[in-house]
Amino acid sequence: MSEFNIKHHGGRASRADRVEKAAKTRVVEIAGGKACGGRELLLIAGPCAVEDENQMESSAAFLGRLGVDALRGCIFKPRTSPYSYQGMGEEGIALLDRVKRQFEMPVVTEVMSREQIEAVDEVSDVLQIGSRNMQNFELLKQVGLLNKPVILKRGLSATIEEFLMAAEYILSGGNERVILCERGIRSFDQATRNVLDLGAVAVLKSMTDLPVMVDPSHALGKSEFVATMAGAAIAAGADGLLVECHPRPAQSVSDARQALSFEEMEDLINTVGPIAEAVGRSFRQGDFQNTVHHIAC
Amino acid sequence: MSEFNIKHHGGRASRADRVEKAAKTRVVEIAGGKACGGRELLLIAGPCAVEDENQMESSAAFLGRLGVDALRGCIFKPRTSPYSYQGMGEEGIALLDRVKRQFEMPVVTEVMSREQIEAVDEVSDVLQIGSRNMQNFELLKQVGLLNKPVILKRGLSATIEEFLMAAEYILSGGNERVILCERGIRSFDQATRNVLDLGAVAVLKSMTDLPVMVDPSHALGKSEFVATMAGAAIAAGADGLLVECHPRPAQSVSDARQALSFEEMEDLINTVGPIAEAVGRSFRQGDFQNTVHHIAC
Amino acid sequence: MSEFNIKHHGGRASRADRVEKAAKTRVVEIAGGKACGGRELLLIAGPCAVEDENQMESSAAFLGRLGVDALRGCIFKPRTSPYSYQGMGEEGIALLDRVKRQFEMPVVTEVMSREQIEAVDEVSDVLQIGSRNMQNFELLKQVGLLNKPVILKRGLSATIEEFLMAAEYILSGGNERVILCERGIRSFDQATRNVLDLGAVAVLKSMTDLPVMVDPSHALGKSEFVATMAGAAIAAGADGLLVECHPRPAQSVSDARQALSFEEMEDLINTVGPIAEAVGRSFRQGDFQNTVHHIAC
Amino acid sequence: MSEFNIKHHGGRASRADRVEKAAKTRVVEIAGGKACGGRELLLIAGPCAVEDENQMESSAAFLGRLGVDALRGCIFKPRTSPYSYQGMGEEGIALLDRVKRQFEMPVVTEVMSREQIEAVDEVSDVLQIGSRNMQNFELLKQVGLLNKPVILKRGLSATIEEFLMAAEYILSGGNERVILCERGIRSFDQATRNVLDLGAVAVLKSMTDLPVMVDPSHALGKSEFVATMAGAAIAAGADGLLVECHPRPAQSVSDARQALSFEEMEDLINTVGPIAEAVGRSFRQGDFQNTVHHIAC
Repeated sequence: MSEFNIKHHGGRASRADRVEKAAKTRVVEIAGGKACGGRELLLIAGPCAVEDENQMESSAAFLGRLGVDALRGCIFKPRTSPYSYQGMGEEGIALLDRVKRQFEMPVVTEVMSREQIEAVDEVSDVLQIGSRNMQNFELLKQVGLLNKPVILKRGLSATIEEFLMAAEYILSGGNERVILCERGIRSFDQATRNVLDLGAVAVLKSMTDLPVMVDPSHALGKSEFVATMAGAAIAAGADGLLVECHPRPAQSVSDARQALSFEEMEDLINTVGPIAEAVGRSFRQGDFQNTVHHIAC
Repeated sequence: MSEFNIKHHGGRASRADRVEKAAKTRVVEIAGGKACGGRELLLIAGPCAVEDENQMESSAAFLGRLGVDALRGCIFKPRTSPYSYQGMGEEGIALLDRVKRQFEMPVVTEVMSREQIEAVDEVSDVLQIGSRNMQNFELLKQVGLLNKPVILKRGLSATIEEFLMAAEYILSGGNERVILCERGIRSFDQATRNVLDLGAVAVLKSMTDLPVMVDPSHALGKSEFVATMAGAAIAAGADGLLVECHPRPAQSVSDARQALSFEEMEDLINTVGPIAEAVGRSFRQGDFQNTVHHIAC
Repeated sequence: MSEFNIKHHGGRASRADRVEKAAKTRVVEIAGGKACGGRELLLIAGPCAVEDENQMESSAAFLGRLGVDALRGCIFKPRTSPYSYQGMGEEGIALLDRVKRQFEMPVVTEVMSREQIEAVDEVSDVLQIGSRNMQNFELLKQVGLLNKPVILKRGLSATIEEFLMAAEYILSGGNERVILCERGIRSFDQATRNVLDLGAVAVLKSMTDLPVMVDPSHALGKSEFVATMAGAAIAAGADGLLVECHPRPAQSVSDARQALSFEEMEDLINTVGPIAEAVGRSFRQGDFQNTVHHIAC
Repeated sequence: MSEFNIKHHGGRASRADRVEKAAKTRVVEIAGGKACGGRELLLIAGPCAVEDENQMESSAAFLGRLGVDALRGCIFKPRTSPYSYQGMGEEGIALLDRVKRQFEMPVVTEVMSREQIEAVDEVSDVLQIGSRNMQNFELLKQVGLLNKPVILKRGLSATIEEFLMAAEYILSGGNERVILCERGIRSFDQATRNVLDLGAVAVLKSMTDLPVMVDPSHALGKSEFVATMAGAAIAAGADGLLVECHPRPAQSVSDARQALSFEEMEDLINTVGPIAEAVGRSFRQGDFQNTVHHIAC
């Protein structure tokens, strides 16, 4: 019986309980010994959308050797317009499954409805709830019934209180494996896609024991700033990074402007590594240090 | 074959088509000859949440005599915290149905998932999609398959472009009976609950032929400003109003601070009536003018 | 001895005193029997910047006959870039003075420093403090020492509390002739230049006895929405309007996109008039009703 | 003749020139060999307001030994309310001067008007323009005529473009010694005082050669988050820090909630030091490493 199982603590009291325990971040295990919330940072990277076999295989091959912990890729895409690309849909599931087994990498994908949860439950190691669904309370309740890690992204204009309350919807259902993700908030300035609110990372870490990741790709929206802000996120106390990376960013079907190339992904690790060390954290050891200069795709 | 049936216009072109036709607002029929988008304003009022029989009956009796066109009342409540009151749920359906038949008033209720749509489809004349679900694209696609009026509320920080694109999700599914609803946007000032963006009403009316309602209750969050802002909304070109009204506001289970009492609801009609006339609009004729001073509840 | 003279009420108490008196809006007299805060609305219109004699004369001639109460025109322009047009400067003073005398219209102009106050004090009937200077506390203290009406525009992201405190800087210096002006706040949406916060007008009217004007031109930033929103502002309780109008908007040296033509200015009065009447207000009687169809410039 | 002297490059062209040179940050010299923009970070700390001799002497003694480069302290305070403490005013000048000479530390103070500039010009090594005055264009023009370093703080809701244009007002007057300072922007969340926009630091560094400092104290508004965010700021590329520190924070006349104690200031340096090293930067060598454990005040 988990010490965080809300049903045994009872209703409103549970939140306060959790806050008291916040000094020590809870470790959320992903798969294959990888986790978020411990000394080791969790590094998730991959394309915005699953597009085809070649794209996913080359991404998994490269990112795996680089020491990336899990591969992201959406098969259901939440898009502002109904006329934009909506993702591969269920066709993508078999592809995700094949890549996951071949490269022994856990996979992370977004869900937007009960039907999608059922469809990807077998293959996906981590479910992502996107910003636009942070207050889709029915969806939160549904993932609250699972025993599977959930990355919950902060809503575009969600207060920290609302963000934590959205997490409570999942936790109060019994699923204690929640990872928060700051991904930029909406503001008045158009110089970056959103405003990355790293102060929120520090505040969240003081208010809850849930681990907190940062997605610098969606926050900045421009690839040239991603590595720098990934470093700043780790300095601010983030427990992991969620980064968009694509074999050929210019050909990405969505968010091309923000995806890193493989070379830029290496630069990111080179940038973030020393900062992680400076704050007493580290990446999991990949083949990176020895082989990175020989990798091509 | 409807002139707005997107499937016969084909994909991306359809939006431009609609904009060209925007000079004339489309009339969305509700029920019983009531509609939104014509010269007559649509007035929807009622409690935030359906609580009990007495509350709903006294509301329907009073509001019906006042000339209110439809009764609102949520049985599924989207709440920031999982520990707040979540609504009566399916128990409330029979109650809504009884009140609707007894008082011959169309009813409006919010849905947050496919299951809820199926549950209320028989009884509810209009479905409401709340702000937090404006970009719940799976939900939008589902109501897009119905032939039932949908009030789509603007997201807390949705741009006008995103708002229209959310409407496109419904329209492109074949459901042409969409009513937009401005309900205040999130801002830096805490003097009002949200900032009522009446400029958006004027902009929306210039960009689309969809009718536009305004919810001054959620926008302001304080009952003392609701009537004034309802008048301003009509002056800005709104095609209808969605107002929270409760027999005993102080005892409302949610949003008590913003609900109007019956007396304040009368004041609202007295305030808005002359402004409606000044802009060439009117309320549907109720028993209001002759009998209002004799109504008690 | 004025009943509002703060020095005789003493420090912090004075704000509370004023709030108590808020039921009755204070009437701020401008000149020539014109005022803001009474039953009659104050209508100020004119070009953004004073450009040349012909522009100002034709504006004064037309607007005066239309019943506009005062002529606006900046000779010192606050511009985002130092390389943009900065206004005519002191050369414009004599021009303003000539036009004011010839057409017997009070004039309103913006000041940004003590030097500018001294330069325009003789000619300007009303001083305007722009949004960017709402918290230029030294400037506020300086106009607080004058006995001259001041239109204080709300800062781009000023809370209502900060706005009232900025007014207190002027009031506490002894100058009781302050008119607040809502002109749109900064937000995330780029569909309009700013978001016109008419809820703030209602809130301000409940918190203070100072009259409140609205500038729909800067708020919306697009001429096609100005008349509609001017009507909404009056419905929301505004005591006056500040409107940009130019003989040839397309040739305006600044803010061309938002200035009304003379014809659009007539439309505005036709739009707002009936709404004013609906809320028990009126414009001062101009030659408008009889002669407007014969006016050319 | 400076290569950045705008008068020799001429008007509008100068901005583009500067952007081209942005690869290499310009070094702005402060005094006593201290500078901002080179490999060494500039560290400015001290109380929000100059209060008395004891406060300033103990601050200078402690911070100087800690390796802090310059002492901040306002004698003119911009306050939201006219009834709040407005600063020591001219009395404070002699005090600042005495402390500066005794402890051989450059001093930084805020100015809000021409009169204040004249009053502090002799004593202050660096002038600060606060957020509320970022678009006080007359003030910017005045400091543009000096040959003295200016720290220009970003306005509460200033876009990056507006921030750079405000800097241009100073630069185009001939004063090339401008340091930009990000200090948090206004947003919807009240969990922190403002939202620290570290993405803006990265963007600014890519757009201009001006050095960029960060003020984490005003951004977060809570002392417990200042050290962490100072580290994140350096990771994001900041060239220096501006930190509020007070011998007895709880007794500070203003902003008590955000001021660091001396002990917390040491922690900040211990936190930031390794991150600075990780990004190839360093603090100037103080007595810190050897003596810090023996310092008392």
